[in-house]
Amino acid sequence: MPEGLLTRDAVLALDGADELAFLREAFALPAGVVYLDGNSLGALPRAAVARLREVVEREWGERLIRSWNESGWIDLPARVAARIAGLVGAAPDEVAVADSTSVNLFKLLAGALRLRPDRRVILSETENFPTDLYVAQGLASLADGLELRLVPRADLRTALDARVAVLMLTQVDFRTGEIHDLAAWTRAAHDQGALALFDLSHSAGAMPVDLHGCGADLAVGCGYKYLNGGPGAPAYAFVARRHQEAFVTPLAGWMGHAEPFALDPRYWPAAGIARLACGTPPILSLAALECGVETIERGGIARLRRKSVALTDLFIRLVEQECAGLGLALASPREAGTRGSQVSLRHPEGYAIVQALIARRVIGDFREPDLLRFGFAPAYLRFSDVWDAVGALRAVMAEREWERPQYRARAKVT
Amino acid sequence: MPEGLLTRDAVLALDGADELAFLREAFALPAGVVYLDGNSLGALPRAAVARLREVVEREWGERLIRSWNESGWIDLPARVAARIAGLVGAAPDEVAVADSTSVNLFKLLAGALRLRPDRRVILSETENFPTDLYVAQGLASLADGLELRLVPRADLRTALDARVAVLMLTQVDFRTGEIHDLAAWTRAAHDQGALALFDLSHSAGAMPVDLHGCGADLAVGCGYKYLNGGPGAPAYAFVARRHQEAFVTPLAGWMGHAEPFALDPRYWPAAGIARLACGTPPILSLAALECGVETIERGGIARLRRKSVALTDLFIRLVEQECAGLGLALASPREAGTRGSQVSLRHPEGYAIVQALIARRVIGDFREPDLLRFGFAPAYLRFSDVWDAVGALRAVMAEREWERPQYRARAKVT
Repeated sequence: MPEGLLTRDAVLALDGADELAFLREAFALPAGVVYLDGNSLGALPRAAVARLREVVEREWGERLIRSWNESGWIDLPARVAARIAGLVGAAPDEVAVADSTSVNLFKLLAGALRLRPDRRVILSETENFPTDLYVAQGLASLADGLELRLVPRADLRTALDARVAVLMLTQVDFRTGEIHDLAAWTRAAHDQGALALFDLSHSAGAMPVDLHGCGADLAVGCGYKYLNGGPGAPAYAFVARRHQEAFVTPLAGWMGHAEPFALDPRYWPAAGIARLACGTPPILSLAALECGVETIERGGIARLRRKSVALTDLFIRLVEQECAGLGLALASPREAGTRGSQVSLRHPEGYAIVQALIARRVIGDFREPDLLRFGFAPAYLRFSDVWDAVGALRAVMAEREWERPQYRARAKVT
Repeated sequence: MPEGLLTRDAVLALDGADELAFLREAFALPAGVVYLDGNSLGALPRAAVARLREVVEREWGERLIRSWNESGWIDLPARVAARIAGLVGAAPDEVAVADSTSVNLFKLLAGALRLRPDRRVILSETENFPTDLYVAQGLASLADGLELRLVPRADLRTALDARVAVLMLTQVDFRTGEIHDLAAWTRAAHDQGALALFDLSHSAGAMPVDLHGCGADLAVGCGYKYLNGGPGAPAYAFVARRHQEAFVTPLAGWMGHAEPFALDPRYWPAAGIARLACGTPPILSLAALECGVETIERGGIARLRRKSVALTDLFIRLVEQECAGLGLALASPREAGTRGSQVSLRHPEGYAIVQALIARRVIGDFREPDLLRFGFAPAYLRFSDVWDAVGALRAVMAEREWERPQYRARAKVT
């Protein structure tokens, strides 16, 4: 990138040289919108339009129940799981696709406590994604003596002691985008005899994740953010092969049974990762997820990460160039190596500023108490989108548009 | 229906007089197929084709994240739940739509045990749908002293004692179609101080269910059978209003939080039934479910039940008329009042017979060890379909088609 003041032409030249430019065509994006919320809901892969028609009209409508065999529905979860495994540094038989991230996390936390039966503590940080903490609290409510030990990030090391069964962290902080060093945290957990469980929801699909390389024990992740699987897409769960035989899920459902159609009144877990399945999987949502995962495979994680870093670097630089003195503070790491695929800014009027930006067709989101959050999905964003987004931000700030009443009323979903 | 030998013309006349004939047009059914497996996967509502396109192309593709507000995604689970409530005799604020039947059952069983803290027994019958039993076993594995007491149907009354926290039954037996008397079982449970939990998967949408009338405490049900919600459609859960305030779900996720977007690290359950939500709901599958539920509303449960009884009565009568002496035995109640919307027959070669029928484009299914199971979805079946199905069955039996090797190889999903 050129030194000094950046011009629009210089930014357009980045698009001209973009090795991932081809991938934008794989997405159906609305005209005139700069979409900086792919970390919350990924964009629509064009392939999903045709695929969903096929699944609805031909597989469900024409073949009906026979599609479990003839359209391969019964193998669909494992097929998608094997593809996701390739994106997170796991073997195909170490990942399951099923349910929501929360439900999978419940399975993994319960399973982790069974793998460390003499320990009763789940350790996490108060900064973790709230629903992960809720799930741990919900599990703790079920069994006596189970404790969710929740400490600020700075106190994690001290709190990681020999009573901890499992350390639970989210790889990329959903507020600031800061990256946890999974290898270091796994070592720290193992040094204390604890297991390491990571939520990859805000990282997988936008940056390299190497579960084998870091020695992680367990992981979960979301299908609808950087994996572009569609609203409420099924989630995935990773259990390292060395733990699978002893792994017990309390959500024992027929799809995870060794012989689902034997109709035995007793539960016998399927071999390996297959036991992570529970109820009947939502085929329509799964089919869309497969299309989303395919877009990321086409991009290639290394290329996606390079572009993600370039996009977020550019955004920070342009905000500092164009919005200096307008009251915005950087809330994300300046160092790209510790920053995920998002940049967050702080401003006390964050909510209204985000609404004003949306009115200007630049879509980010707001997170309490004062965060303007911008996700940079490298699969479909252009460098010129970053230029346009910062231009809109400067206008909103310079015009004090956040003072307009229509931007101050809270919507149900923020 | 006329007395004596039934002719094809007499059966066609039944179609001519069918008050629900109009509803078949609401479904996209493959030509030339008699579909007797709507109790396993309901047929495709035509409305779902257009609806899914809208959700995928416009709501996801165009509006992206804004659809949570602007397309009403955030209210979609409650909206579908309120419609299902109307089909099962519940109030709109007593039903939640989320997750799978198995996952919802886990929530309800765990919640039931909290409502009866001095009791540690879940009682069910060995004949219950296996996945329901697996879920109870999975829950029991989490907490010391928790017991799934599993007895044959004949011993249920005796086993229902003052140690039982919750009696768990499926309203319609998935093998034989026999109906449990929910009011009687609820009284029996309440007499012992226990709660009554019913699985409505094989009943709701095809026959009246009156949860208020029978005083039931808890219920779950499936979206993809008689509700026509599509493969793996989300499921629903009922918690009687009187239990909601004290109801605790261990699957505490952000969508069931009192303020999901406050991002509080502590879990505070939403008021009422909303706390049953857990992770982000699968919007594509939910949208299809809404279309399916709408088809049943248009039919009206009383009319659907009348036709269901007529279809199953006709099937039994025709099998006895056309297949006498061919080795098939009735496994379902002959009395319509205790029979759901299915008829099962027994034959030692049941699996191969079902395959031979499928080759003749009559689709039922097989259940171990010897059951040929035929579901009669009153929303889209014609009386002439019953005639054709029995004709095919007679041909398969008379020709001993089950002996052909191609019908004996087991598929993955049966």
